[in-house]
Amino acid sequence: MIEHFCIAGDIGGTNIRASLIDTEYRIVSKLKETTGDNPLSALFRLIDRLYGSVPGDLAVCGIGFAVAGIVETSSGTILRSPNIRNFSGLNLKEEIQRRYGVVVRIENDANAAAFGEKVAGAGSTFSNFIILTLGTGIGGGIVVNGRLLPVAAEIGHTTVNTSGPQCGCGNLGCLESYASATAIIGSAISSIEKGVPSILRNSYNGNFYKLTAENIYMAALEGDPLARSVLREAGKALGIGIANMINITSPEAVILTGGLLGAWKIYIEAAIAEASKRAFPELFSKVRIIPSSLGDDAGTIGMAALVFEKAEECAAGI
Amino acid sequence: MIEHFCIAGDIGGTNIRASLIDTEYRIVSKLKETTGDNPLSALFRLIDRLYGSVPGDLAVCGIGFAVAGIVETSSGTILRSPNIRNFSGLNLKEEIQRRYGVVVRIENDANAAAFGEKVAGAGSTFSNFIILTLGTGIGGGIVVNGRLLPVAAEIGHTTVNTSGPQCGCGNLGCLESYASATAIIGSAISSIEKGVPSILRNSYNGNFYKLTAENIYMAALEGDPLARSVLREAGKALGIGIANMINITSPEAVILTGGLLGAWKIYIEAAIAEASKRAFPELFSKVRIIPSSLGDDAGTIGMAALVFEKAEECAAGI
Repeated sequence: MIEHFCIAGDIGGTNIRASLIDTEYRIVSKLKETTGDNPLSALFRLIDRLYGSVPGDLAVCGIGFAVAGIVETSSGTILRSPNIRNFSGLNLKEEIQRRYGVVVRIENDANAAAFGEKVAGAGSTFSNFIILTLGTGIGGGIVVNGRLLPVAAEIGHTTVNTSGPQCGCGNLGCLESYASATAIIGSAISSIEKGVPSILRNSYNGNFYKLTAENIYMAALEGDPLARSVLREAGKALGIGIANMINITSPEAVILTGGLLGAWKIYIEAAIAEASKRAFPELFSKVRIIPSSLGDDAGTIGMAALVFEKAEECAAGI
Repeated sequence: MIEHFCIAGDIGGTNIRASLIDTEYRIVSKLKETTGDNPLSALFRLIDRLYGSVPGDLAVCGIGFAVAGIVETSSGTILRSPNIRNFSGLNLKEEIQRRYGVVVRIENDANAAAFGEKVAGAGSTFSNFIILTLGTGIGGGIVVNGRLLPVAAEIGHTTVNTSGPQCGCGNLGCLESYASATAIIGSAISSIEKGVPSILRNSYNGNFYKLTAENIYMAALEGDPLARSVLREAGKALGIGIANMINITSPEAVILTGGLLGAWKIYIEAAIAEASKRAFPELFSKVRIIPSSLGDDAGTIGMAALVFEKAEECAAGI
């Protein structure tokens, strides 16, 4: 066991979060900056500050960051990151390694969250599971034989409807276009515009374009038919995505995380009902569909675990 | 290296094929029986005959069979096998082990083919690839970091169209319902019934219900518009399935095998064109889409490799 700290965190479209973590996955200190126009400078400022906070004579054995985007993990290159300025095409691993001279790991954010749940969360008792991150977009990560698969797992960008609407990624009928928070909000607004009655119409003094997924869920809990229908339809689409992944990866568990977990009673329950009708019964009967236990920290903890793993390999000369 | 033979083969809805194979994956002898009503007896007869043909003082170190169905590899149980009588629910590994007392491995047929292509075929130079078996149904197998993933990989039974036709598996809009040989034949027959002009109408003295996928491809090569359109549409659907798997598994290669490979010029080319429009460009640009090099022997060779691997582990006391 390496008696060290590592610096781990995640880089999203809005914020960069960085933490100093020990080998027991305890977060010793935690910092945040807005991502902004120059995310690399913001990232370096955060890492510098965390280096300054390392207690006594202990050292930082490595650095790991989860990135919202498609990551080539072997090289540490961000192949595509639509929401982070100047990140697409960047070899982030090289940039960090050049400046700090330690082991560096870069992963996709949902993949990191999957590994976090494996080492210290809801996935710790399973060898084979998938994670789905349900927020403005839909991400995924796959763990097989206790190891994070080094694959894109871009489950949100798989077609569930051949001639569906065009997604930001260029594809038609992506899961994300039906089941994400963005899709839920878009569907509610479009129904209100069409004149479908709803208590949501009066939200924000009639400026219903400001609606959030949480507003819609609250209205649904009050019995608003439009809100309920929008969440149920999104949940059904999610259920198709879950069934597809069950038939592909035959997991022991599907772990769900992200902002939309708050809408479990309508959205997630509709998803589970739909998945139960679509997946092979022999596979569905073996799956547990459960919430994440680490929440927002899953990615950070996953990156820490990946860094410690690599640092141990390096120390052992592997 | 184990200086032994193994017995490997595959069990499908129509035939059981069994071979005696050496550690260089050379097929020493090969037998076949129809699957029939009692596939276990047929299987035992084949294995007995191969045991009888082992030369000199050499031994059989293990037995492995690929099965058309969903297999729980850890236990060797066939969870579901619609086309093989009395196989659903059977612990085939136990049945074989009890009778022959050697290492036994059971896998899904497409998974076995994937591993065969890895050890001795078109996948040998790739660490990460998927295989798609294109025949009456559509199967899949996934290799990551040079290892066969122990997952269902039932790619044919993932939804590509939310409200599509009901599949034999119970789901709606499965890839298999659009892109398999069964789908191609069904679509051609249904168009002829509706009166769409085609040279296929006169096949089999007008009994066009006997059409095969090969007939349809031959008609397409002669320029028959119906045949061309049916194959192109099926190819487009296959392209959606390929794009989904590229976005999930970010492979270096997609290896295609099965009877429909014969229709490469129309069906597969349409699939590649569709996948290129739907997958993330950053991932599609790294993928090679290529035919299998082992063809029908891929599953048998894959099973042999899995058996030798296990036999070596056992010999080494792992």
